[in-house]
Amino acid sequence: MMTADIVTIGDEILIGQIVDTNSAFIAKKLNEIGLGVRQVTSVQDEKSQIVAALKNATQSSDVVIITGGLGPTNDDITKQTLCDYFQDELVLNEATLANLERIFKGHSTSNMLALNRNQAMLPSSATALINKYGTASGMWFDQHGKVYVSLPGVPFEMKALLVHDVIPRLIKRFKRPAIVHRTMLTYGLPESVLAQKIEKWENDLPAFIKLAYLPNLGMVRLRLSAQGEDENKLKTRIDEEFQKLYQHIGDHIRGFEEEGSIAVQIAKFLTKNRLTLGTVESCTGGKIAAAFTENPGASAYFKGSIVSYASPVKTDLLKIPQAVIAKHSVVSEEVAKLMALKGKELLGADYVISTTGNAGPTKGDSNAEIGTVIIALAGPDKVQAFSFQLGNHREKVLHKTLNKAMEILWKELV
Amino acid sequence: MMTADIVTIGDEILIGQIVDTNSAFIAKKLNEIGLGVRQVTSVQDEKSQIVAALKNATQSSDVVIITGGLGPTNDDITKQTLCDYFQDELVLNEATLANLERIFKGHSTSNMLALNRNQAMLPSSATALINKYGTASGMWFDQHGKVYVSLPGVPFEMKALLVHDVIPRLIKRFKRPAIVHRTMLTYGLPESVLAQKIEKWENDLPAFIKLAYLPNLGMVRLRLSAQGEDENKLKTRIDEEFQKLYQHIGDHIRGFEEEGSIAVQIAKFLTKNRLTLGTVESCTGGKIAAAFTENPGASAYFKGSIVSYASPVKTDLLKIPQAVIAKHSVVSEEVAKLMALKGKELLGADYVISTTGNAGPTKGDSNAEIGTVIIALAGPDKVQAFSFQLGNHREKVLHKTLNKAMEILWKELV
Repeated sequence: MMTADIVTIGDEILIGQIVDTNSAFIAKKLNEIGLGVRQVTSVQDEKSQIVAALKNATQSSDVVIITGGLGPTNDDITKQTLCDYFQDELVLNEATLANLERIFKGHSTSNMLALNRNQAMLPSSATALINKYGTASGMWFDQHGKVYVSLPGVPFEMKALLVHDVIPRLIKRFKRPAIVHRTMLTYGLPESVLAQKIEKWENDLPAFIKLAYLPNLGMVRLRLSAQGEDENKLKTRIDEEFQKLYQHIGDHIRGFEEEGSIAVQIAKFLTKNRLTLGTVESCTGGKIAAAFTENPGASAYFKGSIVSYASPVKTDLLKIPQAVIAKHSVVSEEVAKLMALKGKELLGADYVISTTGNAGPTKGDSNAEIGTVIIALAGPDKVQAFSFQLGNHREKVLHKTLNKAMEILWKELV
Repeated sequence: MMTADIVTIGDEILIGQIVDTNSAFIAKKLNEIGLGVRQVTSVQDEKSQIVAALKNATQSSDVVIITGGLGPTNDDITKQTLCDYFQDELVLNEATLANLERIFKGHSTSNMLALNRNQAMLPSSATALINKYGTASGMWFDQHGKVYVSLPGVPFEMKALLVHDVIPRLIKRFKRPAIVHRTMLTYGLPESVLAQKIEKWENDLPAFIKLAYLPNLGMVRLRLSAQGEDENKLKTRIDEEFQKLYQHIGDHIRGFEEEGSIAVQIAKFLTKNRLTLGTVESCTGGKIAAAFTENPGASAYFKGSIVSYASPVKTDLLKIPQAVIAKHSVVSEEVAKLMALKGKELLGADYVISTTGNAGPTKGDSNAEIGTVIIALAGPDKVQAFSFQLGNHREKVLHKTLNKAMEILWKELV
């Protein structure tokens, strides 16, 4: 079986200054073309470590994707290390030089510096992968039957090169099997209870289909994976297995991850039915609106949002009567419902979801216990409120509130 | 020199289904106590791969932190693998059983299942690290002078165990040097230009201080790192070196990462000076509000936000005259300024920052070019607008807009 290894290079990863998001992106793209990833290794900007990681990777894998360490400054040593590793020498790469000249033409403020000009010097055995968005070219090496690809660490530069250059080249270069992953979203059952309910189904799965449980704050994703010759056949078999689950846990199934996140599914439903959505957020502070609007096409259904973080915004802008707040407190079902209803009026949306609560770490205006969150949903003909106690961990409370709001919208709509 | 290795286990990492955020958190905490991380290795839920990663890790490091694969279901094999690796056997751990009973007492809906009861069986040589938030105990092994720690992969469970149990135990167990990292935030100079401007300073750095450049959408972070006996002495020396930079690139320095993100710095300034902030967001859709409110203490200065995603919200709620929109279009300095001014009025905030633009992927109501973004800032006595062309990559445009908004606020305030 063919596999790939990913090697990410950079002290910033090893000291925890950045989260390595590149590996997940690369792994996903490789999986899509039938290249399973055996291992991800993150090492410092240090020659001996990079070399050790490369050796380990090529012992087991046919493809090694390397990111990071291609910048123009002294702390970037990946290119020289690869050059030495392949006992090669640096030569001027004309295509890279032309790209550098193009980039610096557009930026009259900075001349093309010697540091950048050095970036046009590549190992002679490398095929340059021209970087539209930055000064560091990617490099493709085909050595002793194995392929090594070196990409810049800046995520959007890496992504563009991977998608447009590396993946098409890998498809040409290697014959690969099909790999299919499909992930069902389930809500409302703890992992162990879910596992018990589907135990028989799990035991009856054919050997070539692998099951994984992925628990996360109030939901568990179930992933089935298979590898084989015929992609369509694999997909059909996996779908058949998932279909059987509806009789065991039908009430808890919320669709499939590959259809998009729950936010994307809600967006699709609203767009298709020409319905509109808005949010009125207190404790979540714009998080729900941001979750919808970060996806393209939001303008088809998303009207807007009012973040009424401070109490005066609730009384002055949303016109929630002071008396209601005094009687029930800002963290109450009454106030949450009024927030949603007022939001419908002010934003002109068919559905408005509202949040009010205390995420901590200290008690706020309302004296509500930390972790108390109320979510209300106002629709065309009714308004409902739901109360939750989501613990005392601020980050977790906010994230759970977002998940709960999505879940409430999904149940009502989809 | 003592080092640690991190091994993260889980197919979901290798197929790119999740981003491994645990490693960065662990690396940061280990660095803080003088334990440098040599390598992070991510492997599948497969025995031979886990064993190979453990062997590789212990060849070079004294501490191995392992996450993932401790769940109750069949796909979780870390515990059994460690048990075999240490030629040990599983025995009932009373403290873990008591914790499981406590957890299931609080959740009357689900009985304690056999699957969970199995989680109380730990290798006899393991010290159980009791997990307050979940059913999988962490494990601490002290074998042949090396320490192995196995933690659950669910981030908040892992974090709680690491901070409250693992770090204090490591401090007791090993004598460690001090490691100091400090990172200066610079804006407005490309990496190569910055490197040229500070070349002499870089060359004059003492050998024990290491410099790294970390470029990211419009900013470059400069990190100095040092390791030694005396933490205070290292800090002083690093501060001295950074001080010298003000004469070379003073206009481009925006503080230090360790003082908190630019959002945190703005928040501190506003809180200290009893000033308030609001946002009126179109293209950013709540992203700026969410960036401020995700930090605790936001209620001291953050009033709220209006997300006027759809044009009617601009005219009806914000009362921006239709004629102004018709004349200048929704993506214009005029509209951005009115958004900010109206926001001040409606939210009752001292400062309001507004955004309007087109992040793509298609042209919207305004016919503005994709990537055109206007940011306006209304303060106590003036309103200013700034126009940008931020490219044609939606995710990047939105992220750059957030960075630019923070930069504009920082310049005005701090």
